[in-house]
Amino acid sequence: MAPRKGNLMSVRSDIKVLDATVRDGGLCNNFEFTDEFVTELYKANIKSGVDYMEFGYRASKKMFDPKKFGKWKFCAEEDIRNIVGDNVSDMKISVMADVGRCDFREDFIPKSESVIDMVRVACYIHQIPAAIEMIEYFHTLGYETTCNIMAISQANSEQVDAALEMLGQSSVDVIYLVDSYGSLYPESAGNLAKKYLETAEKYGKLIGFHAHNNQNLAFANTIETMSYGVSYLDATASAMGRGAGNCAMELLLGFLKNPKYNLYSILSFIENYILPLKASGVVWGYDIQYMLTGQLNRHPREAMAFTAENRSDYCEFYTSLLENF
Amino acid sequence: MAPRKGNLMSVRSDIKVLDATVRDGGLCNNFEFTDEFVTELYKANIKSGVDYMEFGYRASKKMFDPKKFGKWKFCAEEDIRNIVGDNVSDMKISVMADVGRCDFREDFIPKSESVIDMVRVACYIHQIPAAIEMIEYFHTLGYETTCNIMAISQANSEQVDAALEMLGQSSVDVIYLVDSYGSLYPESAGNLAKKYLETAEKYGKLIGFHAHNNQNLAFANTIETMSYGVSYLDATASAMGRGAGNCAMELLLGFLKNPKYNLYSILSFIENYILPLKASGVVWGYDIQYMLTGQLNRHPREAMAFTAENRSDYCEFYTSLLENF
Repeated sequence: MAPRKGNLMSVRSDIKVLDATVRDGGLCNNFEFTDEFVTELYKANIKSGVDYMEFGYRASKKMFDPKKFGKWKFCAEEDIRNIVGDNVSDMKISVMADVGRCDFREDFIPKSESVIDMVRVACYIHQIPAAIEMIEYFHTLGYETTCNIMAISQANSEQVDAALEMLGQSSVDVIYLVDSYGSLYPESAGNLAKKYLETAEKYGKLIGFHAHNNQNLAFANTIETMSYGVSYLDATASAMGRGAGNCAMELLLGFLKNPKYNLYSILSFIENYILPLKASGVVWGYDIQYMLTGQLNRHPREAMAFTAENRSDYCEFYTSLLENF
Repeated sequence: MAPRKGNLMSVRSDIKVLDATVRDGGLCNNFEFTDEFVTELYKANIKSGVDYMEFGYRASKKMFDPKKFGKWKFCAEEDIRNIVGDNVSDMKISVMADVGRCDFREDFIPKSESVIDMVRVACYIHQIPAAIEMIEYFHTLGYETTCNIMAISQANSEQVDAALEMLGQSSVDVIYLVDSYGSLYPESAGNLAKKYLETAEKYGKLIGFHAHNNQNLAFANTIETMSYGVSYLDATASAMGRGAGNCAMELLLGFLKNPKYNLYSILSFIENYILPLKASGVVWGYDIQYMLTGQLNRHPREAMAFTAENRSDYCEFYTSLLENF
């Protein structure tokens, strides 16, 4: 078995914590955060030692009507600058661009003119060639890049090997293992991480992990993959994210031993901004319906509909999932 | 590193699942369950393939006033029989007896006359000699026994070694690793489990794990320790248990590959009995205050008081914990 990198007491200076609250959490409230929420999260992340903050997607305005979504679905340069100015902090800024859902040649300016540091390209495994085209373009513009291969629990190992080899030979900086369906266990997430890390070592890349909490394993999977050498770790305040949510920032910062990370500011943000958001009716987090789609390695869409309808007839829901396998 | 026993696809016929809903969950509602609740849980556990159901504590009626607690704090023989009759099922029945809080020589009849199969002796690590005295007595009565060493995250390794050696030489059947404070990580729980399993192999004992969910790791720690050979696994319906709760039965049964385990009946029980219990105001489960005591390796009592007072001033609470270290 691959050795763990460091132990439970050691500082891993290669670790980068990325806050994805506005991006993945935006999937819970149609990206309709107040400027105050985003500004206070930005400040809290800086004080907490977070390394990257993701402001949202840069989605195509041709495909998605800006009147129907909050602005963080599009992450206009001026909207980010309205929050961060020139971002005179050590924290870097990222946006996500989905393969097939953005106009990347039109909508990105050179990094030298942008307050954005990193573009994360999200794709399914059959879209790797399209992702690499985008990644190479973003590199010519001067951005750091990641490739976030989603729904990895449904890919077979030949696909994963091929994708890693192609990405290894690309300009991408970080390859992300993404458990979109929250169906990985620490042991399976760890085994995939070891495979990703082999490519990383061969080609000089870094590996990231993005968890979903369908089986209450988001934090466990994050620290398990980290222990083998994964270094880019996604988390969100109070685990806010689609469906069952993500790895909670407060769990992750409380675990990391590097004294640069500080729990207090995130607790303060949760108390003052996340609790009111929840009280206003925005819903996310572990629940039986998400557990079931996670156990069955399925997209959470049926569980999200079940949640939206305020249902709690778990047996009926479970039966319907099994019938539609 | 010790090898894992089996893999994510294999059936481990040595696994025993123990439902502790009424016992650990009773700490949330003063053991005041209706007979209907306990009866339906008993039926659901049998249908789900659960191996043991724990009915509660057998506490001293001299030390605890029966008028002030529900009957499952005392688990009188006739109260159990009132639910299970002669228990004509494959599922076994356990009760817990705390060192120093029970009248074990007066309150237990011989196993041949009792519907109880197993007595679980709970103690802190300095109480091992007292626990062994009880264990030997229960063996003369004919019961299966376990020793549940609580708060293991605060014991040092010399204490753990000594305790395991003493228990190895006793008549105990199963030695439980108990993460009372929910402060173990999969890596630390796994390392402790390997140590316990060494003793188990030397003396022909079995090892169990009892988790708390302070850091959302109850299920992760359970399956991690299991993977190294731990075979007695505690879980509760909807994770009902003191403070942050335990490992959820529905997560565990959904994970185990042995076809004897069946999720449907537990889902039905949750839908019909756990949801109304929660709606009636009984509170348990992961929350920031429990995360903080877990991270600090502390008893959850302050977090329980914080919860009872409906507080959400996490920063103030965190500061107070750090001041009282």
